[in-house]
Amino acid sequence: MQPDFTVHNTTPAGGRRSVLRLPHGEVQTPVFMPVGTAATVKTIEQSVIESLNAEIILANTYHLYLRPGHELIRRAGGVHRFMSWQRPMLTDSGGFQVFSLSKLRKVTPDGVEFRSHLDGSKHFFSPEHSMAVQIALGADIMMAFDECVETPASWERTRDSMGLTHEWAARSKRYWEEHRHEVPWGQGLGIREQGLDLAPGGSTAFGRTYDHTRFSDKHQLLFGIVQGGMYPDLRRESAERLVEMDFPGYAIGGLAVGEPREVTREMIALSLEILPKDKPRYVMGVGYPDEIEEYAKLGVDMMDCVLPTRAGRHGLVFIREDPNDRASKPIRWNIKRVDNAEDHGPIDAGCKCMVCERYSRAYLRHLYVSDEPLGAMLNSIHNVAFYLETMTRVRAELQAQV
Amino acid sequence: MQPDFTVHNTTPAGGRRSVLRLPHGEVQTPVFMPVGTAATVKTIEQSVIESLNAEIILANTYHLYLRPGHELIRRAGGVHRFMSWQRPMLTDSGGFQVFSLSKLRKVTPDGVEFRSHLDGSKHFFSPEHSMAVQIALGADIMMAFDECVETPASWERTRDSMGLTHEWAARSKRYWEEHRHEVPWGQGLGIREQGLDLAPGGSTAFGRTYDHTRFSDKHQLLFGIVQGGMYPDLRRESAERLVEMDFPGYAIGGLAVGEPREVTREMIALSLEILPKDKPRYVMGVGYPDEIEEYAKLGVDMMDCVLPTRAGRHGLVFIREDPNDRASKPIRWNIKRVDNAEDHGPIDAGCKCMVCERYSRAYLRHLYVSDEPLGAMLNSIHNVAFYLETMTRVRAELQAQV
Repeated sequence: MQPDFTVHNTTPAGGRRSVLRLPHGEVQTPVFMPVGTAATVKTIEQSVIESLNAEIILANTYHLYLRPGHELIRRAGGVHRFMSWQRPMLTDSGGFQVFSLSKLRKVTPDGVEFRSHLDGSKHFFSPEHSMAVQIALGADIMMAFDECVETPASWERTRDSMGLTHEWAARSKRYWEEHRHEVPWGQGLGIREQGLDLAPGGSTAFGRTYDHTRFSDKHQLLFGIVQGGMYPDLRRESAERLVEMDFPGYAIGGLAVGEPREVTREMIALSLEILPKDKPRYVMGVGYPDEIEEYAKLGVDMMDCVLPTRAGRHGLVFIREDPNDRASKPIRWNIKRVDNAEDHGPIDAGCKCMVCERYSRAYLRHLYVSDEPLGAMLNSIHNVAFYLETMTRVRAELQAQV
Repeated sequence: MQPDFTVHNTTPAGGRRSVLRLPHGEVQTPVFMPVGTAATVKTIEQSVIESLNAEIILANTYHLYLRPGHELIRRAGGVHRFMSWQRPMLTDSGGFQVFSLSKLRKVTPDGVEFRSHLDGSKHFFSPEHSMAVQIALGADIMMAFDECVETPASWERTRDSMGLTHEWAARSKRYWEEHRHEVPWGQGLGIREQGLDLAPGGSTAFGRTYDHTRFSDKHQLLFGIVQGGMYPDLRRESAERLVEMDFPGYAIGGLAVGEPREVTREMIALSLEILPKDKPRYVMGVGYPDEIEEYAKLGVDMMDCVLPTRAGRHGLVFIREDPNDRASKPIRWNIKRVDNAEDHGPIDAGCKCMVCERYSRAYLRHLYVSDEPLGAMLNSIHNVAFYLETMTRVRAELQAQV
């Protein structure tokens, strides 16, 4: 299936400037997607995310399924309406969190039985159920339900898991094709909004125009996920099998799980050889600022990672070694350092974000050591800005290489 | 001493519309001052506080003395520069926190010896030391160092404490008169900023114009604090004694410590009879939304309270019983309530704050039960907006009663 994806130019190394048009808006690629796990990018309010020019964010299916529940969100009109984010969104399938967060996990060919990390209650995720949940959430892009294998894993274990992932990918796609029309865009209005004038261009209780008709001919895209662990032959096989299934886009999963960087790159590179060039290629869960730049220049179109926000909450902020050279080496700077205590300059003197425009390292250090909520917030805002600035620069560099 | 305080009109009940001109700007009164304890209004970033039209905020001397330290802040050019807040500020004297937060407190006629609640280290606060710390911090308004007496307290105990407070008020004033020229406005530039062009109108590392000359003929104001517990005769005596000392402004302290509302009102009313009408009158640490309205209409010009931000962090948000009547009864609404779970309307349908313009009760409830930082932030922003909106309405009502 063809996505609305236009590749403008491709560089010799493989990186390319493209545009992905989604129901909720356009996304310039390569793109870094901030992660909004439980329908919130931790500590950062939506108008701030908008001001950072993030065009697409992620939400986690496992978390939202458990709380507040996908049916509640469906009734709210989907996760965009629920969290008041009007731009594109992507949901993962829940597969990774079931693997990494839940307790007492049992995998069968049918799916995964697990206990919630929140309250120990029993749940079951299958490809069909994951699709149903993601359709109810209504992100622009959904991910096929895959099995995540532990690291390291033997070739046999990896091959068996890959086989299961391929079956689950086919089942995901089948369910999506049959049920994607159920996406709640334009439906499932909030209780309070019923009875209000909601004709095209009509306002909600929030005085915002919500035009339902813009979604009437649109649906979500389902991406398949290439697995195969760290085994080149399995990776190739997985990519080929998924390409046969003709997904609108492809992710490269199961990486950045502790393997050496060179291996990550190798697995990405060989997957990119096989994945179609006229569809988006998404490496999940990466990475450090130099990594996202490296992979974008290889031909990766989309990436996501909790690192900017998580590091921010731990007092770690990204800077450029030479503030005046935004392409210089990225460094992780610990705001707690004693030598920040009276440093009245910004985190990064070359950064133009709202934090670096206004606040000093001294103040940010004070906030952090005082455990003040504003500390985590400002660190996170800067870090997300840093990541987005990185991709803006990379896009410009790719565009210039005609 | 005369402050730059202009009373525009006084209503029969005593409330009045005035303007207080301070070194960092003008304040329309009666005013509610959000509390920024450790140089941050908890969870709310400074540009958001500005957008809420808060004209003056508070910081706590005890907290900043302990961490990061007043000398560090003095070297930074004062707390305004340190936290990047360019509007008026007020610091309390530290007296109340020494009383309520510290461990192993020992009061002598000279001052108070105490142990830090942070690390148990020993410290000593005297009127002179409190003044020195507050001068180093550089808020527009400072408070005299007073003794706080426990509640309830006998008449004798209250009288003795009051006597000490009066001696300390005189010592505070003497020190302030001798040392207020040491305020670091325009001095004590940050390390990074040294060497930059900082002539009047010159920019800092932050690209902001910092005009030092605007402070060259200005200094901080020191307010005296009326004590006297819940004893009318002692309250009158305290007010009279402080008026004799000719402070630029007066606070009414030691209230809202558990006494019945009628007693609070009585103590305020009789203090207001004695305090001069041509100077600001500030009731510390109050109150609920109906209280601040009540006291403002009696003639109180300034109030502060942690309630809007603290309640917000605990999932409690203020609404009007009738959203369309902003003067109707204020109600504290618990965002955790199950009946919020699918309520897609705003916290308060008549509130025009950024939270009520964008986010639903359902989403805010989700954030709160999920312990997401954005929850506490949005609740707090709404609550501060609610308080500031209350005072805006009260000022308009007072102005209209010509």
